[in-house]
Amino acid sequence: MRFELTKDFLELLNSSIQEDDISWMEQHLFVLHHADIASILEELDVDDSIYIYNLLNEELQGDVIVDLDEELRDTIIRTFSSKEIAEQLEHIDSDDAADLVSELPQDQVEEIIGHIADNETAEDIVDLLNYEPDTAGGLMQKEFIQAQAEWPVNRCVVELRKQAEEVEKIFTIYVVDEHNKLVGFLSLKRLLFASPTTKIIDLYQNKNIISVKTSDDNEEVARIMEKYDLVSVPVVDIQNKLVGRITIDDVVDVIMDEADKDFQLASGISENIESSDSVWRISRARIPWLLIGLLGGVFGAQVISMFEGGISEVPQLAFFIPLITAMGGNVGVQSSAIVVQSLARGTDQFGSILKKILKESLVGVVNGLLLSIIIYGIAFVFDSATLGLVVSISLFTVVIFAAIFGTLIPLLLDKYKIDPALATGPFITTLNDVLGLFIYLMIGVLAYGV
Amino acid sequence: MRFELTKDFLELLNSSIQEDDISWMEQHLFVLHHADIASILEELDVDDSIYIYNLLNEELQGDVIVDLDEELRDTIIRTFSSKEIAEQLEHIDSDDAADLVSELPQDQVEEIIGHIADNETAEDIVDLLNYEPDTAGGLMQKEFIQAQAEWPVNRCVVELRKQAEEVEKIFTIYVVDEHNKLVGFLSLKRLLFASPTTKIIDLYQNKNIISVKTSDDNEEVARIMEKYDLVSVPVVDIQNKLVGRITIDDVVDVIMDEADKDFQLASGISENIESSDSVWRISRARIPWLLIGLLGGVFGAQVISMFEGGISEVPQLAFFIPLITAMGGNVGVQSSAIVVQSLARGTDQFGSILKKILKESLVGVVNGLLLSIIIYGIAFVFDSATLGLVVSISLFTVVIFAAIFGTLIPLLLDKYKIDPALATGPFITTLNDVLGLFIYLMIGVLAYGV
Repeated sequence: MRFELTKDFLELLNSSIQEDDISWMEQHLFVLHHADIASILEELDVDDSIYIYNLLNEELQGDVIVDLDEELRDTIIRTFSSKEIAEQLEHIDSDDAADLVSELPQDQVEEIIGHIADNETAEDIVDLLNYEPDTAGGLMQKEFIQAQAEWPVNRCVVELRKQAEEVEKIFTIYVVDEHNKLVGFLSLKRLLFASPTTKIIDLYQNKNIISVKTSDDNEEVARIMEKYDLVSVPVVDIQNKLVGRITIDDVVDVIMDEADKDFQLASGISENIESSDSVWRISRARIPWLLIGLLGGVFGAQVISMFEGGISEVPQLAFFIPLITAMGGNVGVQSSAIVVQSLARGTDQFGSILKKILKESLVGVVNGLLLSIIIYGIAFVFDSATLGLVVSISLFTVVIFAAIFGTLIPLLLDKYKIDPALATGPFITTLNDVLGLFIYLMIGVLAYGV
Repeated sequence: MRFELTKDFLELLNSSIQEDDISWMEQHLFVLHHADIASILEELDVDDSIYIYNLLNEELQGDVIVDLDEELRDTIIRTFSSKEIAEQLEHIDSDDAADLVSELPQDQVEEIIGHIADNETAEDIVDLLNYEPDTAGGLMQKEFIQAQAEWPVNRCVVELRKQAEEVEKIFTIYVVDEHNKLVGFLSLKRLLFASPTTKIIDLYQNKNIISVKTSDDNEEVARIMEKYDLVSVPVVDIQNKLVGRITIDDVVDVIMDEADKDFQLASGISENIESSDSVWRISRARIPWLLIGLLGGVFGAQVISMFEGGISEVPQLAFFIPLITAMGGNVGVQSSAIVVQSLARGTDQFGSILKKILKESLVGVVNGLLLSIIIYGIAFVFDSATLGLVVSISLFTVVIFAAIFGTLIPLLLDKYKIDPALATGPFITTLNDVLGLFIYLMIGVLAYGV
């Protein structure tokens, strides 16, 4: 029942484009869900995407453009005049409209706004452009349904009918007082089943009203909607006046983007990239972390060169250099990942830093002991009891240090308002490499007396 | 307006628990949103949590137990008799009820089901227990609103009123034919504004109906709801009969859990753990990857020992061992992260594997060239032109190999239905370490002729 994009479909589509076979497209493409049309456009050449986009009716154009990836969306938008863009904006939600124009140059935005026929739409977009993109204000839309507490149900239905024309999805009716301050909620379900003369004030829910402020951070909004299982949340200004609402679909996008960003940061990628981006863009996003890794490697070389004489006499010491650095890195990344996640989820917020480090050290002792015993046996068989002792003692020490640093650094970054996910990348690996090498070689030269 | 948990509040609560000050709790705790009460219980000692839970009224108990973390939830559930559990289940949604009992032993589940007074509730739970937990069937609830296509609006409202008693949140009315097959949707908004005698068949939307099958994977459900911006999705069986619905709040949890799992896997943690888990559990979740890392380090030692003579004569070769292994690891993790994400998002599904590897190799060439030039200069100043040449040539080679392996391995894992996120952890780092060492030392002994 759901449409599944196949290679066959793409081939048929491509030949229909070649042959200008509009009737094929009308039968097979334009009848699809706008989200499917958008995914199909993503798979075509840019010129073909623009060609098809222009064949869509205005309403479908509005739906499709919102579903497109930023890159293709901007490309298509740039092929239109300001007047044409203005016409399209009238068919889409205010939040999407503001997002769409926010990427364009300031003077073109003013031109577009000037062309918007409906005054209210223009005002809504201008208002939304004032907010920072990663706040509740930047995420909210101006389309929502509100009712005054003293209205009876029948008046409410009449008023809602007017408002509802421009609100595609109603989840909850927000109840306000005469100063437009949010005082509660009313579900559509309760309204539907209430008698016409009941007053809203006798129906609505005025306890535990969850709202967000325009200045609240995106991620905070996501956390609140997740915690309270909300499908929409009202946005209020500092005077508690209702100014917008945020719907769950936009928040799901925030959650996914954040997860992607964290995953990429932890993997040493500094910009939000996709596998379909250009070689140049992908290379650029990856070079900062590689440079940090390179710098770490140079520090490592510096440390080893301090022990050049020792290695020359006891070259076996070099055998376990990769083991020590790899284990320090692995343990550090594990520790920091746990901290980063607990910070992101807002759990465990009342524990002291000291307690967390103590706990991580204990984990380090448990795992360090086990690993040390194993590696003692291996290094003993591999070379000698001396090397076994050197490797196992330094591995134990490195594991504990790595666990402590892995815990401490993200906590410190968070304290100074830097994204702690930064810590789980090559950063912590590099630090632990240098430290681990020093510990290992120091113990080595002491044990061998070289 | 939103409740913020503070240390002060926890202290006041703790003293009210000590003094059995129920009236304080009634004024300050029981009035809160159930999600807040649940977070507060998480912060208390287990005995205190159980004590407070027993003070809540039955309806609040049902709401709170669903919001609790699995661990505390199971602990609390175990303090109740089967009859008491059965009573609580009647106050919560069928999907949550099924989740709750699914953790209990089979014979106790049967006992509990036997105690459930409402026959339909019992049947719903029994039905839901049949589905795999990570499928649409395991995620769905039996509470939803359906209408038959031939009903007029006024009959529909009457029928809905009956059904709506047990459905807390109505988003969409599912329209079925006389065989209970899903034929379309009707939004509550359209119903609210329609004239009483209009037939549903003239109102409902029967194009582009998005539904999922009971056997669809959790992540597939999440992807569909995200793609089509849905707040609820109907679940159908293989005959297209309507059997349940999935709401967005449950899917948000799936998305967050998946993101956490991927992040942990990429960080080398094999079980879903939190910083509040026991030292023993955290240690156990981390040891598998550390053992892989250890094994990799031993292979590394093996490779280096093959070049023992060379290192003894030219100990400078040891200087850049950590740099080579670190860079191989970093590049490999970066490449695999991009592949893993594009697989998870389902983007770029029509590109061939060969094309992806070619592209990654190009990225490797760009970054490898830049890094090689820099490291040539550094190694030259550090030691000699020969070492500069050895390090830069091998770094270039290692970067390209790491990029290719980083791309290939997750693609292969995915092909064989293994979670490709496994590849972004120590696994790929370890492989690249061993390979990188071999390349580096081989070039080294050739260049120095030792």
